[in-house]
Amino acid sequence: MYSFKNDYSEGAHPRLLHALMESNFEQVDGYGEDCYTRQAIELLKQKIGRADLDIHLLSGGTQTNLTAIAAFLRPHEAVISANTGHILVHETGAVEATGHKIISIEVGDGKLNAAHIKAALDSHTDEHMVKPKLVYISNPTEIGSIYNKQELEQLSRCCQENKLLLFMDGARLGSALCSVENDLKLADLGRLVDAFYIGGTKNGALIGEALVICRESLKEDFRFHMKQKGALLAKGRLMGVQFLELFRDNLFFELAQHANKMAGLLRDEFSKAGFKFLVYSPSNQIFPILPNRLIAELEKHYDFYVWSKVDAEHSSIRLVTSWATKEEAVLAFIEDIKNAL
Amino acid sequence: MYSFKNDYSEGAHPRLLHALMESNFEQVDGYGEDCYTRQAIELLKQKIGRADLDIHLLSGGTQTNLTAIAAFLRPHEAVISANTGHILVHETGAVEATGHKIISIEVGDGKLNAAHIKAALDSHTDEHMVKPKLVYISNPTEIGSIYNKQELEQLSRCCQENKLLLFMDGARLGSALCSVENDLKLADLGRLVDAFYIGGTKNGALIGEALVICRESLKEDFRFHMKQKGALLAKGRLMGVQFLELFRDNLFFELAQHANKMAGLLRDEFSKAGFKFLVYSPSNQIFPILPNRLIAELEKHYDFYVWSKVDAEHSSIRLVTSWATKEEAVLAFIEDIKNAL
Amino acid sequence: MYSFKNDYSEGAHPRLLHALMESNFEQVDGYGEDCYTRQAIELLKQKIGRADLDIHLLSGGTQTNLTAIAAFLRPHEAVISANTGHILVHETGAVEATGHKIISIEVGDGKLNAAHIKAALDSHTDEHMVKPKLVYISNPTEIGSIYNKQELEQLSRCCQENKLLLFMDGARLGSALCSVENDLKLADLGRLVDAFYIGGTKNGALIGEALVICRESLKEDFRFHMKQKGALLAKGRLMGVQFLELFRDNLFFELAQHANKMAGLLRDEFSKAGFKFLVYSPSNQIFPILPNRLIAELEKHYDFYVWSKVDAEHSSIRLVTSWATKEEAVLAFIEDIKNAL
Amino acid sequence: MYSFKNDYSEGAHPRLLHALMESNFEQVDGYGEDCYTRQAIELLKQKIGRADLDIHLLSGGTQTNLTAIAAFLRPHEAVISANTGHILVHETGAVEATGHKIISIEVGDGKLNAAHIKAALDSHTDEHMVKPKLVYISNPTEIGSIYNKQELEQLSRCCQENKLLLFMDGARLGSALCSVENDLKLADLGRLVDAFYIGGTKNGALIGEALVICRESLKEDFRFHMKQKGALLAKGRLMGVQFLELFRDNLFFELAQHANKMAGLLRDEFSKAGFKFLVYSPSNQIFPILPNRLIAELEKHYDFYVWSKVDAEHSSIRLVTSWATKEEAVLAFIEDIKNAL
Repeated sequence: MYSFKNDYSEGAHPRLLHALMESNFEQVDGYGEDCYTRQAIELLKQKIGRADLDIHLLSGGTQTNLTAIAAFLRPHEAVISANTGHILVHETGAVEATGHKIISIEVGDGKLNAAHIKAALDSHTDEHMVKPKLVYISNPTEIGSIYNKQELEQLSRCCQENKLLLFMDGARLGSALCSVENDLKLADLGRLVDAFYIGGTKNGALIGEALVICRESLKEDFRFHMKQKGALLAKGRLMGVQFLELFRDNLFFELAQHANKMAGLLRDEFSKAGFKFLVYSPSNQIFPILPNRLIAELEKHYDFYVWSKVDAEHSSIRLVTSWATKEEAVLAFIEDIKNAL
Repeated sequence: MYSFKNDYSEGAHPRLLHALMESNFEQVDGYGEDCYTRQAIELLKQKIGRADLDIHLLSGGTQTNLTAIAAFLRPHEAVISANTGHILVHETGAVEATGHKIISIEVGDGKLNAAHIKAALDSHTDEHMVKPKLVYISNPTEIGSIYNKQELEQLSRCCQENKLLLFMDGARLGSALCSVENDLKLADLGRLVDAFYIGGTKNGALIGEALVICRESLKEDFRFHMKQKGALLAKGRLMGVQFLELFRDNLFFELAQHANKMAGLLRDEFSKAGFKFLVYSPSNQIFPILPNRLIAELEKHYDFYVWSKVDAEHSSIRLVTSWATKEEAVLAFIEDIKNAL
Repeated sequence: MYSFKNDYSEGAHPRLLHALMESNFEQVDGYGEDCYTRQAIELLKQKIGRADLDIHLLSGGTQTNLTAIAAFLRPHEAVISANTGHILVHETGAVEATGHKIISIEVGDGKLNAAHIKAALDSHTDEHMVKPKLVYISNPTEIGSIYNKQELEQLSRCCQENKLLLFMDGARLGSALCSVENDLKLADLGRLVDAFYIGGTKNGALIGEALVICRESLKEDFRFHMKQKGALLAKGRLMGVQFLELFRDNLFFELAQHANKMAGLLRDEFSKAGFKFLVYSPSNQIFPILPNRLIAELEKHYDFYVWSKVDAEHSSIRLVTSWATKEEAVLAFIEDIKNAL
Repeated sequence: MYSFKNDYSEGAHPRLLHALMESNFEQVDGYGEDCYTRQAIELLKQKIGRADLDIHLLSGGTQTNLTAIAAFLRPHEAVISANTGHILVHETGAVEATGHKIISIEVGDGKLNAAHIKAALDSHTDEHMVKPKLVYISNPTEIGSIYNKQELEQLSRCCQENKLLLFMDGARLGSALCSVENDLKLADLGRLVDAFYIGGTKNGALIGEALVICRESLKEDFRFHMKQKGALLAKGRLMGVQFLELFRDNLFFELAQHANKMAGLLRDEFSKAGFKFLVYSPSNQIFPILPNRLIAELEKHYDFYVWSKVDAEHSSIRLVTSWATKEEAVLAFIEDIKNAL
């Protein structure tokens, strides 16, 4: 049974494992102060095009979200998130467990804009309510849509005008930046958001997210917060070596391109066959709406999530591709769809 | 420069990397529900000799301590710890950050006993004070001493009589269990403590601690707590594969034995040369007291911690060995000491 | 300018102040262990008709909500609340600050029912999401509607079947129980909910809410939680004396009846004049929808909240009456409306 | 049985109750925005001699300590306290429950000095440990000793040099400032500490502590923190009226002088009779060391705490006087001691 269930089903890209082997017997400092982590961080600064960034490697998305948000906010300050935001529902209240409310904003396509932010600010007016302070977005969003440059610029300006922090969850950032529709560069992120992270786990690494802190006032003492939240790995080299390998050349982007290309093949096929999608998603996740009968057929040979019920006879499914998705598996899946129609 | 600074300076034992490579391209479930993690857990249950255990793999010591303690306690309940306890000083208030006070007990040799526990209980008598509920110990302790069976049995009985939970930090448990002076077995731990963990990071793995929950009432919903604290790795296989390899045969214990043997060579040499130790430690950490002049000399070629000032002319240093410590490096170090005397 | 802005604008009913004076020079124990608090608690148990209740006096609604909810839940457990719930928006994230997420359910009339609860349970299915555990309701609701016996019985049954705790915020409970449409008694609450509180502050006292814990498993160590959250007043007598006076005879209910009667006069008048209401509220808060022009006129002489915009020319206002509302003020207000029409 | 057990056994000074009665039927704003609270705050600013202070009224010591400390610190920052500090043991982990560790410093006389602070800073050096940020003192201390001006100036300077916040718990501040040995004025506190509070509950009020925030950076959004922690009383007038009455003239200080005078009578008598004291305390608490036989005798007619065992035949007791302590009760107690000798 082949799986399109998620993008963390496989191990690491072989080059990363190879790099781990090669560096395995060197004695290096612990807790992310090793030479590999340092080099990886320098490399990322170059790629983003700013020397004045603080970059930290953390183990996963939830860990990064909770550590950063708890570090950035004072106790009475709250997060604004789209209702589809990962932190809102799918992280077991990790942010609330650090004491902060998340204000949910109903959106259609997973994306927040200035009007959403203003509505949240207008409804939180005094000390009997939390004070909105950080805007959480992800790119791509939970439902695969991506922010373009103009959208992010407008959102960024709105945040600055209202003294809000803009934080981008980039668990699948590679896929967003490599989307055929993307016009954002890493350098734009360094300029437009206060902090963001570059997800390794879902794009070729075994583990690791690179949190980039752009705003000066958010940098101080961040390693204290990491240690306090259990996010400072003793053998930090594990992540340093992998990120160094991912960004030493263009491997990170090549892997994301492959994932997007595989999703594109699937998307095109469903479109050609006349199926609609729950949402327009030009990244590595697609959400076609299929007859339940067809879904049942496909489930015999493939693993994926049935995402939501659309009507009595149709549901949307989620198909996720990754750096490791095999083109022949995609083609076989397409063939199976055709046969099932 | 050779390092005796800690036991997480190197990568993983090659067999573990090899196992990661071999399993790398299989598609498996995420979040620790993969076949490798399941097998590793089954194996650990067999080694401990109880089928009714809950076992979870987490990324590191601080993460494990904070997740377990926060899950086990109600808000007003507190931890009792020796003043040398790692959670007390060296985890950046990770336990307090989850809301729980740690009651510090002054001890000489790093070990808690029933008298200590009773003193803590006697001084916490009503609702104006926290309620002591969990006794935190580590084996070996932070200063390398180990609990023997009789000591642990007495402590366990005291905890049971006073409805206290007994939790053992086993970041270096391999070294304790393989000490020449040890008379405890994994099966004893399953019987005598409410929860403990088996440290992988400091004994051959790149990452990973196996938390063993023995007491029934502590098991419920533990994965919720892991997820909430950022401790549920998407690619849980990373730890599953390694633990499976460590415990598939006796590798875990062989590695710890090697570390202890290397520490023993150093200990014997310092003893022979007439030096005293800060504390008696039959595990992979030793704390010889040396003339500052000698320390300065050794620092030219070796990396280690100067632990504490003893008098105007002497300090204790900490030397840590690991599965990867090379016997020739130890012998060279011994030679250098002899020459420096 | 007369105020219908809220029900905490005045001081205490004179009998309560008198009782404070009379008992003022007695030396009594602190922290709620005084004879007055004990008597008040005994009296409340009698009124509710159960001897096996734990009752505690706390200073206000937010303090009571946060202390109780934090005491009752484990870290990963969440609250279910109507979107109008006071804890959701109007307590500055007090519940989230103790680490717990509140799941918001959209409702029309401020009231939760079994279908709402089931929907919340159905959408929280595994450890990647919080675990719904406590259902928060208030009676009357934030918008003045009340639960009848049948509704509360159904909700209670649903909670029991799903192992959820049912918690009732009773900041204005007097008004609910004295509503002409009410068929619930204090004894019903003791039977149908796991914990509730009887608000004193908004019904004649200077300060004080009586939290009633009905479920055995929620009682243990509750005073620890109170102390930890700053809710154990040194001079607990301040609340004990007042509750004793409120419940010594029927004063508590007489005060609530008066408040309801005053609200009824206003309600009838608006109805007669042909105005509609935002919501049907048979308690001491009413929400008539008025032309903005009329609102502007009334604001010249009266203080009240403009609650929400209804259309371009109409808004709803909130009028709150209390034990201290003067009938002549209500009649004058009614006269002013008539004149303004 | 007459009680010297604590200073919160009685109600309020009659003038305060009278003021509550007089203002009882006025309609005023809630949540501390009433005219009485505003006037009380203005008055306090005048007494302290600075217009640029933020002052808030809270219900009790623990509530004030936890709200202020949680508002002032970031998650990884810790409190330094004397081992006798009230927050360390006697507030059920209230500060830790907000996430912050308290570093305990062993002191003899309850007072912290610069050397203590430096020792704490020297032992907290990197991100594996909490970052000391706020120094908590109380005046008088838990054991009745008081800070003189020179001591406070030195401590203040040390805090400024090390970027530490200095916070003074003033639950019994009246007693300290009215001690015959005191040379500190309210104006000195406004200059030397970053925040402090003036305790009303233990000096004539039914409830209420006035928190004075001196440092600009600590003022922002403080009412959000109060609301979040349940510290914003709906009928804030309850405290405003009382503080206004206490400080309208010199009542607050007269009450404290009386308490001190009563303690002085007791102190002199024990001295004359040749008894020693556990600690030198020139405020309203004394700790004479008495033969256990005498203690047993006194316990027949008086209520007080047996504080600590001194040797097999002697213990220290704590006697507390207050604004309400009757001179005839003190004289009778003295007579009883004489008779018992």
